[in-house]
Amino acid sequence: MPQDRHDDPFEWIDEQSERRRRAGLVRTLTPRPADSPLLDLAGNDYLGLARHPEVTAAAGAAAARWGAGSTGSRLVTGHTELHAALEAELAAFCGFEAALVFSSGYAANLAAVAALSGRDALVLSDAGNHASLIDGCRLSRAEVAVVPHADPEAVRKALETASRTETTSRRVLVVTDSVFSVDGDAAPLPGLAAACRAHGAALVVDDAHGFGVLGDGGRGAPYAAGLAGAPDVVVTVTLSKALGSQGGAVLGPARVIEHLVNSARTFIFDTGLNPAAVGAAQASLRLLRREPERAERARAVATALYERLTAAGLSAVRPDASVVSVRAPSPERAVRWAADCRAAGLAVGCFRPPSVPDGISRLRLTARADLTDQQIEEAADAVVRTAPTA
Amino acid sequence: MPQDRHDDPFEWIDEQSERRRRAGLVRTLTPRPADSPLLDLAGNDYLGLARHPEVTAAAGAAAARWGAGSTGSRLVTGHTELHAALEAELAAFCGFEAALVFSSGYAANLAAVAALSGRDALVLSDAGNHASLIDGCRLSRAEVAVVPHADPEAVRKALETASRTETTSRRVLVVTDSVFSVDGDAAPLPGLAAACRAHGAALVVDDAHGFGVLGDGGRGAPYAAGLAGAPDVVVTVTLSKALGSQGGAVLGPARVIEHLVNSARTFIFDTGLNPAAVGAAQASLRLLRREPERAERARAVATALYERLTAAGLSAVRPDASVVSVRAPSPERAVRWAADCRAAGLAVGCFRPPSVPDGISRLRLTARADLTDQQIEEAADAVVRTAPTA
Repeated sequence: MPQDRHDDPFEWIDEQSERRRRAGLVRTLTPRPADSPLLDLAGNDYLGLARHPEVTAAAGAAAARWGAGSTGSRLVTGHTELHAALEAELAAFCGFEAALVFSSGYAANLAAVAALSGRDALVLSDAGNHASLIDGCRLSRAEVAVVPHADPEAVRKALETASRTETTSRRVLVVTDSVFSVDGDAAPLPGLAAACRAHGAALVVDDAHGFGVLGDGGRGAPYAAGLAGAPDVVVTVTLSKALGSQGGAVLGPARVIEHLVNSARTFIFDTGLNPAAVGAAQASLRLLRREPERAERARAVATALYERLTAAGLSAVRPDASVVSVRAPSPERAVRWAADCRAAGLAVGCFRPPSVPDGISRLRLTARADLTDQQIEEAADAVVRTAPTA
Repeated sequence: MPQDRHDDPFEWIDEQSERRRRAGLVRTLTPRPADSPLLDLAGNDYLGLARHPEVTAAAGAAAARWGAGSTGSRLVTGHTELHAALEAELAAFCGFEAALVFSSGYAANLAAVAALSGRDALVLSDAGNHASLIDGCRLSRAEVAVVPHADPEAVRKALETASRTETTSRRVLVVTDSVFSVDGDAAPLPGLAAACRAHGAALVVDDAHGFGVLGDGGRGAPYAAGLAGAPDVVVTVTLSKALGSQGGAVLGPARVIEHLVNSARTFIFDTGLNPAAVGAAQASLRLLRREPERAERARAVATALYERLTAAGLSAVRPDASVVSVRAPSPERAVRWAADCRAAGLAVGCFRPPSVPDGISRLRLTARADLTDQQIEEAADAVVRTAPTA
């Protein structure tokens, strides 16, 4: 057979790059300085804790005491008393029996989905789920069915169909974000949990954008839905958003956590989270317990932003947590809009294909708890002033 | 159809747990204190930098200046000038055009393998590869062929077969660890690179255990093999082993790095590495450039340990880097041996199924550059004294 392979194994990258350029979808990395003059409504520092002096001091103190790195897998040398303390505090705060910290929320999601399903399992995954949940589904080698977004009735029907067509017991996992990253809308957790219970399925909830913001004092969306400590519910959270640090955690029944310790590949084969991140997350959590009003303030800031933007005629999604999503007419105009906001002193997120499941580009504003009323006004003004004309 | 599912969706976990218990394969988490009296030959802190005062101080300073977390995806708010500086220094040190930092080596490997292959690609993966490379293969949805361990001739034959049976050009990726974690043996990089070049395939090398230890001043195994800066070679490294921090990086041609920025899911959808880890890795890298003898010392310590252990009749693998693997007669006796070492004041790793591809349990000793000659003697004595009798 003739062989027409070229000597350059990465020639295809140039072709893809050119296609991206033509479509206006090139992503570039722009480093920010330590003291940016921009008002930040782009990051996920929902409670304004990433630069809180208590939190950054705790990061430094943890590095000084425990080392800059954890030096190994948590099963070898990477598990310190600091990790154990954070896990106990996280579990107690959110109302679950046990918690397990990972080096990222991504790793926590890969672990929860893959280790709780498996080749013979069925996973029902919400159409709007985060990339890390989708990758967890892929790694699981389970049968994966994507169910319509935020639709408990669709989940119930899929579970009924699965029950009818099976003669033997089979692991079934329903997987959903609690607050969807792109639009900031909430999953109907009570309805999903009820559907799962009716069919003996487990529910995995990624509370990355709910933890610290929703529920009593920021205990999270599952807590708010009365699911904290439920024997059939597993929750993942991030330490990198509301807690302003890095890492992720899985919360759930003790036997589930033990199972992850023994079988989750992103736990066993990864280096433990660095002590500075563990110490910072612990300090943030303690701060949140001391100042529970931060959670409520994050939600109030989001509502205020939403009301100002929609009053000015923009198309935004009513925020269920502290993400405010504003629709843009096209990817190019979304990019231009975000750049114009930046020129006006405001950093906002810009979501466009392939990061948006429905292909609709958005500006994404995150409502930090530490924004002043005046900053909210300034931010809304800048977004409205720079909006693309219809 | 009858339905015999139980109400408890995690009942199967108890069954698996019981099977693990009966097989003596239960893993438990044992937190270590900040000031352990044990001599540590279990962690991957190869250069003894994780607790170096310059490194831990840099972690604290970075948290104070840049925040405890990076607050978002590197494409939104998570990319700081500190990240950019570390990337430039990593690329220059290892001799590659560009570098991209990830929140873990695991995430870097998932990115490199998945984003450089794809559904129509062929990936040849060494039988001894790390879990993160294997998971990268699974996520890629490529055709994956496992090739015999450290065997360039087998790779060459597989590439020839693939060339013969294909009528169109196809992406082919050869993926290998540079130093295999379990046995500490090195991959035959020059032979693998030659085979790749003869067939227009790309080579991805995970240098997690070579970076900082092998090559001139610790520039890594690809550098030692003359592959630094090669247009068809992509390297991943960790910041959590030789650099004593956390995170990972991909090194390669600038166009490959740009491609990852635009398409690697564990880059786009993950929070950027926390500043403390970035600052610590940068400080370690600068220390290594100032004190290049650390790399050589790590290798010398490994050789000294190996010679003492084999002189005493133990079965060990000649170390190519700074991991010394000692065979144990069974999983149970490996666990007992490691516990006896611990009782004698020595922390060692214990690898057993399912973490070992061949089912053979081992003690795993890591030779830190900062061990004194007396500590080497003490460590070897403890391992020999506690060895299972035949």
